[in-house]
Amino acid sequence: MADSLGWIQDPCHLIDAVATETAQRRQDQLTKPRGSLGRLEEMAIRLCGMQGTATPSPDPVQILQFVSDHGVAAEGVSLYPQAVSFQMLHNIARGGAAVSVMAEAIGARMEIFDLGVVTDPGPIDGVRSERLGAGSGNIAREPAMTEAQLRAALDLGRAAVERALDNGARLLICGEMGIGNTTPATALACALLDLEPSALTGPGTGLDAGGVSRKAEVVARALALHVTPARTPLELLRRLGGFDLAASVGAFITAAQRGLPILVDGFIISSAALAAVRLNPGVRDWMLFSHSSAEPGHRHMMAALNADPYLDLGLRLGEATGGETLVPLLRLACAVHQRMATFAEAGVSEA
Amino acid sequence: MADSLGWIQDPCHLIDAVATETAQRRQDQLTKPRGSLGRLEEMAIRLCGMQGTATPSPDPVQILQFVSDHGVAAEGVSLYPQAVSFQMLHNIARGGAAVSVMAEAIGARMEIFDLGVVTDPGPIDGVRSERLGAGSGNIAREPAMTEAQLRAALDLGRAAVERALDNGARLLICGEMGIGNTTPATALACALLDLEPSALTGPGTGLDAGGVSRKAEVVARALALHVTPARTPLELLRRLGGFDLAASVGAFITAAQRGLPILVDGFIISSAALAAVRLNPGVRDWMLFSHSSAEPGHRHMMAALNADPYLDLGLRLGEATGGETLVPLLRLACAVHQRMATFAEAGVSEA
Repeated sequence: MADSLGWIQDPCHLIDAVATETAQRRQDQLTKPRGSLGRLEEMAIRLCGMQGTATPSPDPVQILQFVSDHGVAAEGVSLYPQAVSFQMLHNIARGGAAVSVMAEAIGARMEIFDLGVVTDPGPIDGVRSERLGAGSGNIAREPAMTEAQLRAALDLGRAAVERALDNGARLLICGEMGIGNTTPATALACALLDLEPSALTGPGTGLDAGGVSRKAEVVARALALHVTPARTPLELLRRLGGFDLAASVGAFITAAQRGLPILVDGFIISSAALAAVRLNPGVRDWMLFSHSSAEPGHRHMMAALNADPYLDLGLRLGEATGGETLVPLLRLACAVHQRMATFAEAGVSEA
Repeated sequence: MADSLGWIQDPCHLIDAVATETAQRRQDQLTKPRGSLGRLEEMAIRLCGMQGTATPSPDPVQILQFVSDHGVAAEGVSLYPQAVSFQMLHNIARGGAAVSVMAEAIGARMEIFDLGVVTDPGPIDGVRSERLGAGSGNIAREPAMTEAQLRAALDLGRAAVERALDNGARLLICGEMGIGNTTPATALACALLDLEPSALTGPGTGLDAGGVSRKAEVVARALALHVTPARTPLELLRRLGGFDLAASVGAFITAAQRGLPILVDGFIISSAALAAVRLNPGVRDWMLFSHSSAEPGHRHMMAALNADPYLDLGLRLGEATGGETLVPLLRLACAVHQRMATFAEAGVSEA
């Protein structure tokens, strides 16, 4: 496997230090008390550095929406029946899901992937069928993916980013939908961070305390089965992840290598972000973090990534909706950066 | 004074309890785990209740931008010279200020008022000259306003909201610009909340610790001069406020009486919000709070108003920019509320 996946460790693009410094200087010359727009200034400065420009913009925004099933749903880790993944794939494609409504509202492009819901839906308008199986394996009993499935998932994430770049994308958001997928996300993060299941396991779609406790036991069984000190992050991703997580990892690493800014969504995608950074630490420089998830374990992932998410609105839906929520604020930050007058231009006295 | 200002205590419009409940029920039927869009759901539900509708929208957004000088600037309470108010009035009108760039970016309407910068600028394109004087009085030595000035400021805020409503406005944001105006905002809040100057005084445009300490002494002198147990909130507003604060109070009370949702901006406008609620408690129901200001005393105002602001991005510019930053999120919340499919519509199984 290592041979054909050598690209994973190719170096990431470098942040443009000159553009970053120029952007900071410009912010300090705009007609406002220095630093008074807080993290809106930070958003603009970071995008300047990533995009190597004085005229940053998140647009076009490319969302990659990865829909897939997870064998671990058989362990009763979700409130919803597994058929919901298949149903939601249609709902997302028809525009009725939160991610779809918000993508239209913010004017983002979205590619929707069927990576393998249990029942093959056949062709759906607006959905790329890139099925890797009828759901990933049940991590409480077996690896989530074969080596071939892992490779294919990483490769299709990579290819999706290449397509996005060919179409001019300037910001990447990965989203996911799949019943049960907080469980592999939790297990993978526990393995990568060496944390107990109880620290990271949360209610997901809405489990009660008993449900969370049973879910933590499922995570513990998966960890006992798959984690050994000798196993690499890539092997842990194969065993504990899922098609959505692996595709996101491939997308993130490729984006960082190609210099495309990444906006990291919530709990599940943060687990993929963590894996991507473990596989290639340079990826971290290309990440912005949209929001603190209401899923309690998310804070441990953010701490491990040294990330301070911008929003804290009690979001816990996933599907890229947190990332979408931040996009208008990135746009405002860029507008301010480019269009405000400097003290000199406006004839305003400085402090 | 009491006679001609009797309108201040007229009852506020009532929130539509049926629309609120209908909105909550709809949120619970949309294709997402219940509550999983957190405070985006709350935004939509509150707007439904305020607007008495199932199709809420913040648009058109009306910004009232109140520019004025404050005599207390003579006490050295700001890093910037007083001439900056006059200069920024021009900068706001020409589109170079943060509030102007953001208003254009979010497609909000803005009325810009010269309520009395020290030097009369004469006619400026896009500015309403409603000058109440060459700045308000120095609160460390005299009342901020005469009774006639207070009445005029409240009335012009009221008239501005009536105009906005005539033009179909569905959300009100008040903003302010005026060198030194964190000092009257602080003094007024200290008086209304019975807090020490040290609890509420902060760096404003960027004072160092010594500057903050001197500013707190100025606030203390103003409180010693003007606060007695017998004085009403209206009299405290007259003595400790300013044209911008009083106009905002008039605008907020009128908005609540006429059923127009209010989005409260940062530190200075929150002091006006506090005064408005003290004058007419029903105003509180009509307020949304955009952000936690980086100005440290803001949290005491929010606590007194039982407010939990949506954003925490280190903003401390004022000028309505915090309110403007939240507007795109209100729009997203409304889009989700109106356009997402229900479980029944999408044929998605429920939990």
